[in-house]
Amino acid sequence: MANKKRSLTGYQKEENDELWLWDDIPELGMEVGYKIDRLLHYEQSSYQEISIADTRSFGRMLILDGTPQITSKDGFIYNEMISHIALATCPMPENVAMIGGGDCGPAREAMRYESVKRIDVVEIDQRVVDACKIWMTQDSKDNADGRVHLIYRDGYKWIQEQTNVYDILLIDRSDPYGPATSLYKPPFYQYVHDSLTKEGIAVFQAGSPYYSSHILKGTVKNLQRLFPIVLPYTCTVPTFPGGIWCFVLASKKWSPLQADLSRLQWTHSKYINPDLFRASFILPNYIKRLLNE
Amino acid sequence: MANKKRSLTGYQKEENDELWLWDDIPELGMEVGYKIDRLLHYEQSSYQEISIADTRSFGRMLILDGTPQITSKDGFIYNEMISHIALATCPMPENVAMIGGGDCGPAREAMRYESVKRIDVVEIDQRVVDACKIWMTQDSKDNADGRVHLIYRDGYKWIQEQTNVYDILLIDRSDPYGPATSLYKPPFYQYVHDSLTKEGIAVFQAGSPYYSSHILKGTVKNLQRLFPIVLPYTCTVPTFPGGIWCFVLASKKWSPLQADLSRLQWTHSKYINPDLFRASFILPNYIKRLLNE
Repeated sequence: MANKKRSLTGYQKEENDELWLWDDIPELGMEVGYKIDRLLHYEQSSYQEISIADTRSFGRMLILDGTPQITSKDGFIYNEMISHIALATCPMPENVAMIGGGDCGPAREAMRYESVKRIDVVEIDQRVVDACKIWMTQDSKDNADGRVHLIYRDGYKWIQEQTNVYDILLIDRSDPYGPATSLYKPPFYQYVHDSLTKEGIAVFQAGSPYYSSHILKGTVKNLQRLFPIVLPYTCTVPTFPGGIWCFVLASKKWSPLQADLSRLQWTHSKYINPDLFRASFILPNYIKRLLNE
Repeated sequence: MANKKRSLTGYQKEENDELWLWDDIPELGMEVGYKIDRLLHYEQSSYQEISIADTRSFGRMLILDGTPQITSKDGFIYNEMISHIALATCPMPENVAMIGGGDCGPAREAMRYESVKRIDVVEIDQRVVDACKIWMTQDSKDNADGRVHLIYRDGYKWIQEQTNVYDILLIDRSDPYGPATSLYKPPFYQYVHDSLTKEGIAVFQAGSPYYSSHILKGTVKNLQRLFPIVLPYTCTVPTFPGGIWCFVLASKKWSPLQADLSRLQWTHSKYINPDLFRASFILPNYIKRLLNE
């Protein structure tokens, strides 16, 4: 609410001494409060406000500019769903890159694929990676996997230098505000296309089909001009507003609808399995209709 | 938050004169605020506090004891998913009953099935039905369908008087607080079983598999003692906490997994379609595992 007095973006000490994080979503006329048991990290980096906190029910939470990004309790859903669909669709992915995803969650999922030789994580803000390394990484051994290379660059600039290199590119962009804005511009989709090998697959975080359907529509429309196979799919992430969330897969050759799912590395997964892989492409009528508008 | 001063349950006038509804979920350490454009109806009935309000982004909202129940913007998801799965699974449903659902949304979906001769809506609180008739019903013609019969009774008492009558029984119960508490007691499941014909099917609202997994587990466990076919299924309702929501279908003879979906009346639906009918039974691993615990 506009009239709240806050010491940090979104944080407020209540009269009973409890600390709460308030995620204000003015375009929805909505605000969500999370009781904070412990604020572990807070800083203003060159790009954004970064904080990490233990919440009552959502576990540890990474918050950028006051918006929860990922939690230790349900982050597995987002991390599995942005990565496995493309990785299992491509028969022998070797070179993988991701823009964003400074918590390295999607990179950890990509490591499950033996054919993968190199995973480049391009994150604009080194401070996010550093803070996540200290507070968010569940297994510190993961960071020691020699295949992962962290590149601290602006993804929009970095991708323009890549041509025909990656089999898989995951666009783990945050909402179209702050440092992620350029990752929604039309030329970006062309750069992604050109950075992929001729059998390459990209996946884009595409927001809530319910609250931000223009993001989903815009992403699909931009990609359909460039790729023969463009398929939106959904999952439900409880800590995201509305729960239902969309990704868009764009592929030059391989379709996930015909994928050999014996390749799916899911035995340790908490969300994805072969049936759910297929079901994620089945859309409710209201999403189908907005895509046909 | 505990320290907020409220005039009505959950409602608060802010310093800038805006009216907000605050849904406090203390067990999650969470609070969700909705900007209210207009409070249309407020009363304390014999059973609960009933209000109806226009919200900024969710349309018209029915609120019971401070908890949003259904909105005009996404209510179609809940209404379609509690009703169509059972109605299309049963080859020729004639007698249908629902406990709860005073907004008559599920009854409107049941009307789409021509074989249905009678729909009994058993609602404890006539004031909910009356308020919804004025403020929530999109099409007043719906209420004139001669097949719908409103019965103002305590569902827990009413069902004990029914034996071998209903082909379909929809348990549109609210959360296990207030007047709905008895609809979660073990004997209730036996009463539901006995009220069904020998080819009957019941569907139970079973809460969030993420935040209230004990409700889902308890419902499944109670039903497995009584029915040969017990299948949980999910949908995502954006205005419910976490989005993902569970129903449990219990059937004496017909399985939805073998249903002839040419019976599904979905051409006017905004959510369900034949593929989504099937996909709704495919569960993420974390839900499968909690059911196997």
